[in-house]
Amino acid sequence: MFEWPLRVYIEDTDAGGIVYYANYLKFMERARTEWLRQLGFEQESLRQQDCLFVVQSLQLDYQRSARLDDELSVSVALERCGRASMVIHQQVMLAGEVLCRGQVRIACVNAAGRPRSFPNPIRMALADQASQFLTSKETM
Amino acid sequence: MFEWPLRVYIEDTDAGGIVYYANYLKFMERARTEWLRQLGFEQESLRQQDCLFVVQSLQLDYQRSARLDDELSVSVALERCGRASMVIHQQVMLAGEVLCRGQVRIACVNAAGRPRSFPNPIRMALADQASQFLTSKETM
Amino acid sequence: MFEWPLRVYIEDTDAGGIVYYANYLKFMERARTEWLRQLGFEQESLRQQDCLFVVQSLQLDYQRSARLDDELSVSVALERCGRASMVIHQQVMLAGEVLCRGQVRIACVNAAGRPRSFPNPIRMALADQASQFLTSKETM
Amino acid sequence: MFEWPLRVYIEDTDAGGIVYYANYLKFMERARTEWLRQLGFEQESLRQQDCLFVVQSLQLDYQRSARLDDELSVSVALERCGRASMVIHQQVMLAGEVLCRGQVRIACVNAAGRPRSFPNPIRMALADQASQFLTSKETM
Repeated sequence: MFEWPLRVYIEDTDAGGIVYYANYLKFMERARTEWLRQLGFEQESLRQQDCLFVVQSLQLDYQRSARLDDELSVSVALERCGRASMVIHQQVMLAGEVLCRGQVRIACVNAAGRPRSFPNPIRMALADQASQFLTSKETM
Repeated sequence: MFEWPLRVYIEDTDAGGIVYYANYLKFMERARTEWLRQLGFEQESLRQQDCLFVVQSLQLDYQRSARLDDELSVSVALERCGRASMVIHQQVMLAGEVLCRGQVRIACVNAAGRPRSFPNPIRMALADQASQFLTSKETM
Repeated sequence: MFEWPLRVYIEDTDAGGIVYYANYLKFMERARTEWLRQLGFEQESLRQQDCLFVVQSLQLDYQRSARLDDELSVSVALERCGRASMVIHQQVMLAGEVLCRGQVRIACVNAAGRPRSFPNPIRMALADQASQFLTSKETM
Repeated sequence: MFEWPLRVYIEDTDAGGIVYYANYLKFMERARTEWLRQLGFEQESLRQQDCLFVVQSLQLDYQRSARLDDELSVSVALERCGRASMVIHQQVMLAGEVLCRGQVRIACVNAAGRPRSFPNPIRMALADQASQFLTSKETM
């Protein structure tokens, strides 16, 4: 499972003194971007292959609030991977405790917004991730 | 059903040329805030009664993308209302077409973050809304 | 002088309970966009004429803070207009009192980011605005 | 001179394909926050001493645009430090080239928003920074 650390700045908070609820989606996308980068894929180069990732649907559960100066960790785990879409499970954590849990369904589209299958190199990298994830679940 | 109009500005877009996916949550909260205001409730005065609204969970379905200069409309419909929480259904629409659909579960908490029941005036206003919504569904 | 009304939502605030300092730039851009739209120009159609507006420099003075639920008004006054750039003076006001004052220098560039002169229709509209502004200053 | 690295994510960009102009203020505040943290001061603990930092005015010069995936570096240099306010010079850089230059004037206020002098420990740390900065300028 991939984890990405980040810090809460004043820009992320709201007048309630906590992280604004939409900003967890920013945190989750930063972690997904870094997960892809670590697998060898940058959005800009994917775009040049006429491959864009768009979020189709998501579910978020807010359990506790993050606050200014908190050092968070955001996880990325590939749950399912099809030919042209994938489902990712993510958690925003503070000191090992889950603050927010999300499930994000992402589709691969071309510049015109039409669904297309993942380019081969990324499909292989994702298949590898998915099998690792399944294996680690089976052995638990 | 309450509807709130808004315009897409450059601040709402991303490098994909479309509205950034987290920003639909901003649009939905603006509409919920105006819906409450129209019912006679401002967040600041609720806060003074030790009543805060926090989002507990949400689901979003993205169907089409909004773009710069689009004139959107965001709806608010109370689906269920309990003693201390409610479920709201929302749609972001462009020219009558749904771009994004959301279901948001909101809880009432005190300043310490503990669940508390809605203050009486707001409970009555919400009950009224919920019955209107049910009636309009039944008659459809 | 053009004025654009807007409301402060929770998304605009930070943990200090006030509007986050970068967000005044969003408010000012919304007002500039509506000012241009009222003059008959939308960014999307300007883009199709290979004309983009970019901010070159700005100055902001923060005098008082805006808060949740505040109804603000943002002004736009063209101070100077050259062949390929203009200087705009803006104020964010609450109930007639200035909260934040800004001066924004904007250049016209092509898609490659090179300076270019304003297209004729917009140059004429801006010249008209500038002379109105000068006249109103002279008569004060 | 303090430097803070950061990455450009899709959340930071706009439909022009570049970093949205207000977001440089977020980047600069992140760097200032980390600079203070490295000097031993967190905003939350300053707040408990009834000491808040507010931006009074700023100047920004935009020279080139940052783009998606860029690895930026943001500098912080204390230019002047008085009893209750300071002026900070900042640069956003990409591979050694300056993209954006800013000068930010920050005041120390109490919870009621009234100016107050810096607490002693922070005044000493800032004086130390300012003298280092002057010395490095003199020896250049």
